[in-house]
Amino acid sequence: MSLPSSVGIVAAKTAHFTEPLSLKSGDVLSQYHLVYETYGKLNADKSNAVMICHALSGNHHVAGKYDEADKNPGWWDNLIGPGKPLDTNKFFVIGLNNLGGCHGSSGPLSTNPATDKPWGASFPVVTVEDWVNSQARLADSLGIKQLAAIVGGSLGGMQALQWTIAYPERVRNALVIASAPNLTAQNIAFNEVARQAIITDPEFHGGDYYNHGVLPRRGLRIARMLGHITYLSDDAMGAKFGRKLRDGHVKYGFDVDFEMESYLRYQGDKFAGEFDANTYLRMTRALDYFDPAFDYQGDLSAALAKVKSDFLVVSFTSDWRFSPGRSREIVKALLDNELSVSYAEVTAAHGHDAFLMPDEHYHNIMRQYLAKIEV
Amino acid sequence: MSLPSSVGIVAAKTAHFTEPLSLKSGDVLSQYHLVYETYGKLNADKSNAVMICHALSGNHHVAGKYDEADKNPGWWDNLIGPGKPLDTNKFFVIGLNNLGGCHGSSGPLSTNPATDKPWGASFPVVTVEDWVNSQARLADSLGIKQLAAIVGGSLGGMQALQWTIAYPERVRNALVIASAPNLTAQNIAFNEVARQAIITDPEFHGGDYYNHGVLPRRGLRIARMLGHITYLSDDAMGAKFGRKLRDGHVKYGFDVDFEMESYLRYQGDKFAGEFDANTYLRMTRALDYFDPAFDYQGDLSAALAKVKSDFLVVSFTSDWRFSPGRSREIVKALLDNELSVSYAEVTAAHGHDAFLMPDEHYHNIMRQYLAKIEV
Repeated sequence: MSLPSSVGIVAAKTAHFTEPLSLKSGDVLSQYHLVYETYGKLNADKSNAVMICHALSGNHHVAGKYDEADKNPGWWDNLIGPGKPLDTNKFFVIGLNNLGGCHGSSGPLSTNPATDKPWGASFPVVTVEDWVNSQARLADSLGIKQLAAIVGGSLGGMQALQWTIAYPERVRNALVIASAPNLTAQNIAFNEVARQAIITDPEFHGGDYYNHGVLPRRGLRIARMLGHITYLSDDAMGAKFGRKLRDGHVKYGFDVDFEMESYLRYQGDKFAGEFDANTYLRMTRALDYFDPAFDYQGDLSAALAKVKSDFLVVSFTSDWRFSPGRSREIVKALLDNELSVSYAEVTAAHGHDAFLMPDEHYHNIMRQYLAKIEV
Repeated sequence: MSLPSSVGIVAAKTAHFTEPLSLKSGDVLSQYHLVYETYGKLNADKSNAVMICHALSGNHHVAGKYDEADKNPGWWDNLIGPGKPLDTNKFFVIGLNNLGGCHGSSGPLSTNPATDKPWGASFPVVTVEDWVNSQARLADSLGIKQLAAIVGGSLGGMQALQWTIAYPERVRNALVIASAPNLTAQNIAFNEVARQAIITDPEFHGGDYYNHGVLPRRGLRIARMLGHITYLSDDAMGAKFGRKLRDGHVKYGFDVDFEMESYLRYQGDKFAGEFDANTYLRMTRALDYFDPAFDYQGDLSAALAKVKSDFLVVSFTSDWRFSPGRSREIVKALLDNELSVSYAEVTAAHGHDAFLMPDEHYHNIMRQYLAKIEV
């Protein structure tokens, strides 16, 4: 057995769809495109496909590099590759950028074919359900009738769960990592503060800032700084930064005194220079709105009555954004339906971000579950 | 015994100080004033004085009303009054607005006597230590050599602790409620996001917005919305708001869908219309900077070696901003110094805000401790 390695140099592809897509909001996208990447080879009977659903700020570039000099491999490169837990010697892996995204798929940044201008504020508010429907069409376009597995962390885990609800015959396994069956009031509250920071930025211009030659960077920066607090645990922050002072003493002002501040500003600045604010708004709304039990008077077990997939559900002890208790709600509802469920609560210090980390225990759990899948 | 009642109609007073106050930053306030209120009567030997230290957005109006029609009594009116846990039949209670505040004491909003203009950005960054020194002078001005008790919650609790360090002979009892010996990295992070929201508001103008006829309301609103998330527990938010929809259905946009959003916007708007952004910056910095163990290589027990007061330390189980563990750090350091300490960890659902609530168990603990104090 060779050592785990990278999927190597990859390139994004684009799939165009001309059959209108009806959205949960009532809006219709008459045409759209999805940018995606694939790793590994689709086998003859097309039974080895695994789709990766991304979280709030993720995209289609899940593994590999764009060229030899590329220093930033895909966001889940530690998990996916030849010999890695999600082994591309066995599986054909698909990553995509969701509708409403800002990395190449149809979204606020892309051109509205009806006007030949950026969609901007007029791009619809998309939901987890809409994403899953568009992902199923992407699978269709690749000739894939059934996924060996759907995999996602955080908001991606919600998409994985929704696949099993919307397309019970089309997905044999669902790996739902660091996720929840819906957001708590506190989760919604954090999203709302982030959105208000963006929307009240004077350079937001109702979402049509592209036409004004400006970007609501201030608001997006605040949103990202706040996000980072919730991705890390209190303990992880304490261990990494604590009360460490950048210059050994405080300066009695409002510039950076603490390392913690420096880290947050750096993360906020970086993100505000890369990500689209309109996409951020839509990703947080998709999180807020996902609630499969809503139409069942809050009964998640009833909402999952038609699900057929097998499940691996993973949570992390220090994740206070999507706490283990929320994963256990999913597990209970699946067990109520007598489904096959493996559940792991991984002891991890990193908080919500743990799902992206190469923790050995976590990766072994993923590896073992995926190894059992027949293709 | 008559039923607990209000201290009645109260009026604020102002104390002027002309002896220069040296600040921890190295700055000097050549003169300043403090606005304060008192409830009850100072006894003949001036042994019954209790000073109340306010938290981030608090002020001198701790109890009573300004007129019969006043619908908003002081912020700790449920605790203080004739027959209440802090009984004004027994104690002479003093509340003040701290230096740097925006409710009448010298601060960014007040006039700098050297320029006859608002201090604005030039008002110094004040610390908990500075506040306590100014509070001691206020006690001097009232002829009070020793306080029967110093009382504070949250940032107010830090001041109470600092009194016992700086003036061990001048305070017989300290009531330190929902507080901490310093902020964690996560606490600092939340403060930093709030400050950055204010400072990057285009109407902040480096803190001299008064001269521009504008206010950085957007930033202050975001800061307050974020603050409110941290004052409540996840469970309390869940119980109060959960995923309740304002209109029974979502609207696929970014206006208010959830009751939680409506609450946060209301709180943010209200605060942004009332509070001064420069004061908010200074209050959060005072929180960040307080760390009595800093000069003792992190050894809190050593930092408290000269303390003589008796203590009541109270924490609340659902307070994740200043968790019970932080109060226990204080208790341990006090016990290391063989001081008399009562500690209560109150089961409460409200999170950090619990210290302001009229919880019966909590108030009984306060009542019993205060009843034992001889005056």
